[in-house]
Amino acid sequence: MRYVLGVDIGGTNLVVGAVTEDGTRVLGLRSEPTGAVHGADHVIDRIVTMAEATMAETRRGDPEADISGVGIGSPGPLDRTAGIVLLTPNLGWVNMPVRDRIAERLAMPASLDNDANCAMAGEWWVGAAQGARHAVTFTLGTGIGGGIVVDGKLLHGASDVAAEIGHITIETNGRRCGCGNDGCLEAYASGPAIARRTIEALEAGAESSIQSAVRGDLAAISAQTVYEAAAAGDPLALEVVQDTAKYLGVGVANLINILNPEVVVICGGVTQAGERLFTPLRREVNRRAFRPAVQACRIVPGALPGTAGVVGAAKVFLDAHA
Amino acid sequence: MRYVLGVDIGGTNLVVGAVTEDGTRVLGLRSEPTGAVHGADHVIDRIVTMAEATMAETRRGDPEADISGVGIGSPGPLDRTAGIVLLTPNLGWVNMPVRDRIAERLAMPASLDNDANCAMAGEWWVGAAQGARHAVTFTLGTGIGGGIVVDGKLLHGASDVAAEIGHITIETNGRRCGCGNDGCLEAYASGPAIARRTIEALEAGAESSIQSAVRGDLAAISAQTVYEAAAAGDPLALEVVQDTAKYLGVGVANLINILNPEVVVICGGVTQAGERLFTPLRREVNRRAFRPAVQACRIVPGALPGTAGVVGAAKVFLDAHA
Repeated sequence: MRYVLGVDIGGTNLVVGAVTEDGTRVLGLRSEPTGAVHGADHVIDRIVTMAEATMAETRRGDPEADISGVGIGSPGPLDRTAGIVLLTPNLGWVNMPVRDRIAERLAMPASLDNDANCAMAGEWWVGAAQGARHAVTFTLGTGIGGGIVVDGKLLHGASDVAAEIGHITIETNGRRCGCGNDGCLEAYASGPAIARRTIEALEAGAESSIQSAVRGDLAAISAQTVYEAAAAGDPLALEVVQDTAKYLGVGVANLINILNPEVVVICGGVTQAGERLFTPLRREVNRRAFRPAVQACRIVPGALPGTAGVVGAAKVFLDAHA
Repeated sequence: MRYVLGVDIGGTNLVVGAVTEDGTRVLGLRSEPTGAVHGADHVIDRIVTMAEATMAETRRGDPEADISGVGIGSPGPLDRTAGIVLLTPNLGWVNMPVRDRIAERLAMPASLDNDANCAMAGEWWVGAAQGARHAVTFTLGTGIGGGIVVDGKLLHGASDVAAEIGHITIETNGRRCGCGNDGCLEAYASGPAIARRTIEALEAGAESSIQSAVRGDLAAISAQTVYEAAAAGDPLALEVVQDTAKYLGVGVANLINILNPEVVVICGGVTQAGERLFTPLRREVNRRAFRPAVQACRIVPGALPGTAGVVGAAKVFLDAHA
């Protein structure tokens, strides 16, 4: 069987796996902290060590395994052709030739693409957007990443920075975003934004079980704290999730009005909220997007939680070496 | 020489011309009021009469003229494959088989596409977006229409309603739009929205030469009134143009962050304001859009005022009958 290694470089974790050439299985999957504070050499070393362990495990399971290359997904902006990550604040990288450094160390060909594009490629290849000609992925985490498929191909744009959908303005004079702009979607619906809105409500005197869950240390509140409280029925947490759904609905409606896709895939921890998220999200989209575009579009959770980036990075490699 | 007729059906005017097969010249160009209130038969009759006059004029200028078909641009939504306009409030049409009705009357093959897509096709073929792989057009008029080129092809989406960029939300709880949604770009930057914002300022007591220009009849104020007052240096009109530029800048920045195009083309009467519009517009885009995407993108006025729709409709026909 032929395999491609997928490497998903995140600000928090590295994920590596060996993906079968049909995309249906991932062998030797492992996730470890990125440890970006220890420097780029450390991160590259760790990726190589993880990749070697993944290959060994894959060959134990399939002695005939032919592992033909490595697809890498990284936060951007990046230069795909040169295989260079231009600037990644979360990792502290500037003009890092990550593709060739990994290719040399593993002695196999490699490809590089944006992590959110890889998630889109994975969901499109074997996940929730399978078979769609036009699709969009929203990946909610520390930021909000996006991926776009148009006419069956990943959209990269004129300079490889398309699909920065976390930074579309949804409130012209709204909340300040980390990017310096006001009113970005990311300033409302990313993990840190969800935590911040919750903290603001508590500071304003809202009652909630969250306060005791963090023993009064509001700075310890994360989006995960909110999702867990919502699952337990906490009214403030439910309100925060509902507001998140509305903001996200504005962003999704904008993408639907612009691209008229067959499917919008929502990925990330926020999908744990299930119908508590998707019902108000779809309601907001129905209210805002053009009816014939809404009717043509499914809005669904990702089908590959934890592996979309790895599977998609492998798909990008396969497409580049077809 | 080979020609294709281009027909641009607008809520206010019909425009017809014979376009050379290289797109560089338009012969027999004519524009007449649509007269939609007189019913669809009247509009079809008028298009046919105009087309016949255009063909006669073209053949007088070029006795060898070979006029091979007719490309039609119409407000949507529409079904391109069937050649049917599904619903056009401005024209009062429902499920109108406009392509085949015109094809039969003129006894030549015809194509149908959205009017804003045709404007994009025209600007992309021989206008301000010529040679771009990725491009976006904003057409400002009674509404705000959009056209998108991705990888050298018009984007139609899953159900032919892509590029409804007038209806992206730029203020989640903003002005009510004609579409029923709140905070659409069109509710801020279309012609009627420009007039409405001016009237509101005058009603609130703003001083302006506009009041005497319309002899105190505020209902007579149109976007054109505002552009003319701005050209004469009226402070209120200049402020309205500047605010329009900011709102439009939010919309343009969103499209740049999503699509990373090489060029954004602004079409319509608002471009009469020249640098009074484009300087604050570019400033707002710089502030809001992702730097590597801004650097890759020109923001320019349309190069085919009055003919982009006709030229683009002909291009759509040629592509469909290549």
